[in-house]
Amino acid sequence: MKQVRVYLAGPEVFLPNAREQLDAKIELTRAAGLIPVSPGDLEIPQTPTKKQKGHTISGIDEQLMRSADAIIANLTPFRGISADTGTCYELGFMCALGKAAYAYTNMSADHHARAVAHYAGHVAPDAHGRLRGSDGMAVEDFDMIDNLMMHGGIERRGGVVVVGNAPVGALYTDLTAFKEVLAIAAARLLA
Amino acid sequence: MKQVRVYLAGPEVFLPNAREQLDAKIELTRAAGLIPVSPGDLEIPQTPTKKQKGHTISGIDEQLMRSADAIIANLTPFRGISADTGTCYELGFMCALGKAAYAYTNMSADHHARAVAHYAGHVAPDAHGRLRGSDGMAVEDFDMIDNLMMHGGIERRGGVVVVGNAPVGALYTDLTAFKEVLAIAAARLLA
Repeated sequence: MKQVRVYLAGPEVFLPNAREQLDAKIELTRAAGLIPVSPGDLEIPQTPTKKQKGHTISGIDEQLMRSADAIIANLTPFRGISADTGTCYELGFMCALGKAAYAYTNMSADHHARAVAHYAGHVAPDAHGRLRGSDGMAVEDFDMIDNLMMHGGIERRGGVVVVGNAPVGALYTDLTAFKEVLAIAAARLLA
Repeated sequence: MKQVRVYLAGPEVFLPNAREQLDAKIELTRAAGLIPVSPGDLEIPQTPTKKQKGHTISGIDEQLMRSADAIIANLTPFRGISADTGTCYELGFMCALGKAAYAYTNMSADHHARAVAHYAGHVAPDAHGRLRGSDGMAVEDFDMIDNLMMHGGIERRGGVVVVGNAPVGALYTDLTAFKEVLAIAAARLLA
């Protein structure tokens, strides 16, 4: 059996039941024949300052990523219309290292739809036909779930982005889309 | 003179006056003795679908990043309380490649303060003393300007994060913090 390590990135580390949710993803990953690598797997040593604690976690997570062969990123919007920024950093990190990259979102509305909603529909084309929000910022429209660097970075490497549609109240806990992308990743990574 | 190429990442690509703003940063970078590498420097060829256009831009920007020796990322919050997700991907990408990393923000309120404001102050410690928002999500507190992967990733590599305080209405155009971090980066990269 091939030994393939998969880094599980996403905002579930912030959940009240983070440990339970991470453990559920870890178990599913193991059941799929892959070796789960999860933020929170290593103990965080005590540090004198808050910032040093942040540095320590950053260092541990980068070390875990380097030890992995692939990433499955949860790009479900977090505190706004876009993915968790730490997860985005991690996805870029893994793509740069040439690791296999997969992602999912639990929100069916794509990036364009969410940006239009952010402006409460107050978007209009500029003189060049480019759609802009009420603050003048361009509203992207690439049939993608988030910024093109993420969605494009995954698909250009042969990875897959699965779009789910979690029930109300289960945006960060529903595992339907995760299971789907996990099955795809496992079939490819273990082939 | 050393030839050092610096990738200029940030959400100004979405501005109504994007070209003008990017050109201002390019000129300042050149004046500092560095070679600017900016998204939008290369022509985007026509593509049959919107998604293929996104893929093309993603590929060009990754190519530009690989050609650069360093990144200066504009982590000013964009459409919410966090940095532009594409910029976060790019920062992770460059950090993984071992490039020098610098960043700035034009908002003086740090990540913790912005998260507390996101919950309109409705945050409280849980049974373990960890601060949580009204949705139960943990509110980070690391003396950092954004998620610890970004701020930590930069500082752990010896990079610098400059915190500005742009005037109202100039959140994406004020160049005070950019100039400050550019001067630090130039002094180090050209040493």
